[in-house]
Amino acid sequence: MRVLGIDPGLTRCGVGIVEGTVGRPPTLVAVGVVRSDPALDVARRLAEIAVGLEEWFDTYSPEAVAIERVFAQHNLGSVIDTAQASGVAALIGARRGLPVTFHTPSEVKAAVTGSGNADKAQVGAMVARILKLSAPPKPADAADALALAICHAWRGGHTNRYAAAAAEARSRR
Amino acid sequence: MRVLGIDPGLTRCGVGIVEGTVGRPPTLVAVGVVRSDPALDVARRLAEIAVGLEEWFDTYSPEAVAIERVFAQHNLGSVIDTAQASGVAALIGARRGLPVTFHTPSEVKAAVTGSGNADKAQVGAMVARILKLSAPPKPADAADALALAICHAWRGGHTNRYAAAAAEARSRR
Repeated sequence: MRVLGIDPGLTRCGVGIVEGTVGRPPTLVAVGVVRSDPALDVARRLAEIAVGLEEWFDTYSPEAVAIERVFAQHNLGSVIDTAQASGVAALIGARRGLPVTFHTPSEVKAAVTGSGNADKAQVGAMVARILKLSAPPKPADAADALALAICHAWRGGHTNRYAAAAAEARSRR
Repeated sequence: MRVLGIDPGLTRCGVGIVEGTVGRPPTLVAVGVVRSDPALDVARRLAEIAVGLEEWFDTYSPEAVAIERVFAQHNLGSVIDTAQASGVAALIGARRGLPVTFHTPSEVKAAVTGSGNADKAQVGAMVARILKLSAPPKPADAADALALAICHAWRGGHTNRYAAAAAEARSRR
């Protein structure tokens, strides 16, 4: 299964593609970032992000999309921008008929490091180790996107419904 | 100027179109809602919203788009869904080359009722009066979308930069 992981953001979306199945080591296909021009207004920036993401879909033909779930209680200043970019990413996947799954940051960290509380450096180091890279991918958004794709491939495309429900419950408090 | 106002939501987006210019009474062109099927996953629901909104753009050819600005501190449970739908709406407008402006709820209420703290009933009643309708449009999301479009038309398409900056500052606290 070829999975495109997307760490959404209005300034910069991390994108990472791995090929992998349950129980086997995933391999790196491609990794990078999609940026928008901060001088433009929000709607035009979302359109730039859409164009950039569509190039990744066109070039690499992923079979599934994994997007980081955005929570309202984090980073109040930028959470709306991030959620808007996340909506654009999900729309592009859905319009291509692909399964689009949201994974929580702690699900992803737990999948690649064994701990839901791992920091960015630990996630980057484990992504490099799993994919046999000489160094953690930069920037951190790109490493996070690969971690999302690895998490999704290892689960065979299934969400951890318990973790998702627990996260949902926390976000509603 | 023909303005499409959009009150974003994942379950239901209010949509309202008015024809108007600064200093003249606006007239109603169309009003309604775009819905998504709650049984679908989020990505597919966003795709349904996109299809529904695109029909409004195709049918009525608006020249400008006014979207309600989403704030992180309101309705923690649904704010991410709403922001994702808002991103999809903004993307569609931007891709058609239209100006897309976000207005805060208090800007819109102040524009149509004279008070930034007006309740939904007051907004609906003033929308009906301004557009010479026999009753407030239902549901409230549809009335809100018309209020957005009226606010935008009356401002000649300009944001109240002071109000936007103040709202931005509050959302970052």
